[in-house]
Amino acid sequence: MRLAVVPGDGIGPEVVGEALKVLGEVAPQIESTHYDLGAARWHSTGELLPESVLTELREHDAILLGAVGDPSVPSGILERGLLLRLRFELDHHVNLRPARLYPGVRGPLSAQPEIDLVVVREGTEGPYAGTGGLLRKDTPQEIATEVSVNTAFGVERVVRDAFDRASKRERRKLTLVHKTNVLTHAGSLWSRVVEEVSLEHPEVSVDYQHVDSTTIHLVTDPSRYDVIVTDNLFGDILTDLAAAVTGGIGLAASGNLDVSRANPSMFEPVHGSAPDIAGKGIADPTAAVLSVALLLDHLGEPELARRVEAAVAFDLATRDHQNPGGTHAVGDRLAALVSS
Amino acid sequence: MRLAVVPGDGIGPEVVGEALKVLGEVAPQIESTHYDLGAARWHSTGELLPESVLTELREHDAILLGAVGDPSVPSGILERGLLLRLRFELDHHVNLRPARLYPGVRGPLSAQPEIDLVVVREGTEGPYAGTGGLLRKDTPQEIATEVSVNTAFGVERVVRDAFDRASKRERRKLTLVHKTNVLTHAGSLWSRVVEEVSLEHPEVSVDYQHVDSTTIHLVTDPSRYDVIVTDNLFGDILTDLAAAVTGGIGLAASGNLDVSRANPSMFEPVHGSAPDIAGKGIADPTAAVLSVALLLDHLGEPELARRVEAAVAFDLATRDHQNPGGTHAVGDRLAALVSS
Ligand SMILES: CC(C)[C@H](C(=O)O)[C@@H](O)C(=O)O
Ligand SMILES: CC(C)[C@H](C(=O)O)[C@@H](O)C(=O)O
Repeated sequence: MRLAVVPGDGIGPEVVGEALKVLGEVAPQIESTHYDLGAARWHSTGELLPESVLTELREHDAILLGAVGDPSVPSGILERGLLLRLRFELDHHVNLRPARLYPGVRGPLSAQPEIDLVVVREGTEGPYAGTGGLLRKDTPQEIATEVSVNTAFGVERVVRDAFDRASKRERRKLTLVHKTNVLTHAGSLWSRVVEEVSLEHPEVSVDYQHVDSTTIHLVTDPSRYDVIVTDNLFGDILTDLAAAVTGGIGLAASGNLDVSRANPSMFEPVHGSAPDIAGKGIADPTAAVLSVALLLDHLGEPELARRVEAAVAFDLATRDHQNPGGTHAVGDRLAALVSS
Repeated sequence: MRLAVVPGDGIGPEVVGEALKVLGEVAPQIESTHYDLGAARWHSTGELLPESVLTELREHDAILLGAVGDPSVPSGILERGLLLRLRFELDHHVNLRPARLYPGVRGPLSAQPEIDLVVVREGTEGPYAGTGGLLRKDTPQEIATEVSVNTAFGVERVVRDAFDRASKRERRKLTLVHKTNVLTHAGSLWSRVVEEVSLEHPEVSVDYQHVDSTTIHLVTDPSRYDVIVTDNLFGDILTDLAAAVTGGIGLAASGNLDVSRANPSMFEPVHGSAPDIAGKGIADPTAAVLSVALLLDHLGEPELARRVEAAVAFDLATRDHQNPGGTHAVGDRLAALVSS
């Protein structure tokens, strides 16, 4: 097993360090190679993702990424040129984002409902396609367009994945989230695909909800969701909200999967590089550690994945949430727990 | 003063009835004419918004709308053909959506923070432009596109309006919400326009936040927001969430404004037609009544508007929220309060 590690910017290297510590305990046989992509490299060489690095990354079984983005770099450069480029080049069409309210974690909702959902976010098209442009820039007649591109191919494969996951879960429920009443073209394609694939999965109950209304239910009745399947942008928005209601972005993990396995999948915390707290040793590495659990699952090591999750669950149930300890302390506790 | 009333579908007619009751108390001089647009008309005549009706609507000083949408009508028909058509034909470029946590209302957040923000949502372009289509429909090669169209003209006028509003508020704070790191073309236009207009408003402090991250802060720290300016789709999503954290969509009002006053502005509750509770007399008319306050403000009657708001504030502070009374009872209480 060969793992490529892209620590990235801000708190990325800090949380990745702890994630690797935990991984080293459960799977010492995994060899890892570090790649210094991110703001620093861009500043010193102008490079974002050189072809040679991309070629090397492809030779790994998986990628662990910390975070990408820095205030010293104009918005979009690192995101489009590095993070999204990786997701697109490596055909990460399933962006998997579980959200669970762990026992012991007090979320911001007074009801403290049970939450255990997973968002299957499309990862390689939609409004993220990058198709669009500026016409008559800097004139009063300027027009900026963004084109959301949705293909039957792209929608079907992510919808199939979502049904497969729903089918294996206890509640077997799938909710398509879109905005079909306004984005009628894309909405029509998504709805038809869900309807067709649902015929092959009579065991899964299916419903539909508009994205605006989903934000309401995520704060008033999040227990209703099991598997949500949605497009790239709605998935981006909803998974931050889902992370917030389950105790924060410090706990939210994600997997960018090429389900066909033609390319290595990539695992990363949902949080960003958090430049405001970088270098202070206070970032919570839990999301990065949970991303390692997703990675182990993907590599066919579900038992190791469960061990990592159990360690996190135990730590969250017992930690002093006012005073959880710094990045290293949390990582040390989790590493000790997985090896015990 | 001439008011056109479009009760619409589902609970629309019920809540509009109460809103008119309250309006009749504070401004008996306003004449109103009803227009039966919506699902029923579409079913019986196939009409959504006939030209003749549109022409008549234009001759009014304002429009009060209940809600549009019914499960018996395919998704998008009424929304695009009636509601959005009204917004676009009448150039409702400022979609104004205040969100306030009223004393006495317990929102879903355990912190019960102070919330008093207003979202200035662009209303006539962006992803709502309706530009897009289906290619090779019903084949494995199908492609669905949606084009977000953003013009300097359209962005500038809504940004100016947002700055004007921020400038008149106590905190004088404006937050641009977008997704500039991914939607780089539209994001660039929005950012540049905000930067330029900010030069004319040194009294307003300006910041920027990504839409995904905004959903987090709306549940963890909503007090930070004063005026949010954003595009049509992000505004749609964020205002449902803002409504949820301030006690629900039953209380959220909106104004679709043509700030130039060339066309009548339109006022409507943010909630939809809620077919599940329609006809039961249990819909909360408060959002419709608060929309009347926005209408009075727009018609140059700020004192009457404050009276309506004060009545709502009093009722919310004193009502039994477990048992608020039915649609009529709430309307009767509010009507009595404004005339007392
Ligand atoms: C950093 C950004 C490009 C990214 C996204 O929008 O996908 C992030 O928000 C995420 O959710 O992983
Ligand atoms: C009904 C729908 C078209 C509408 C919108 O998307 O604008 C609604 O959600 C709203 O926010 O007023």
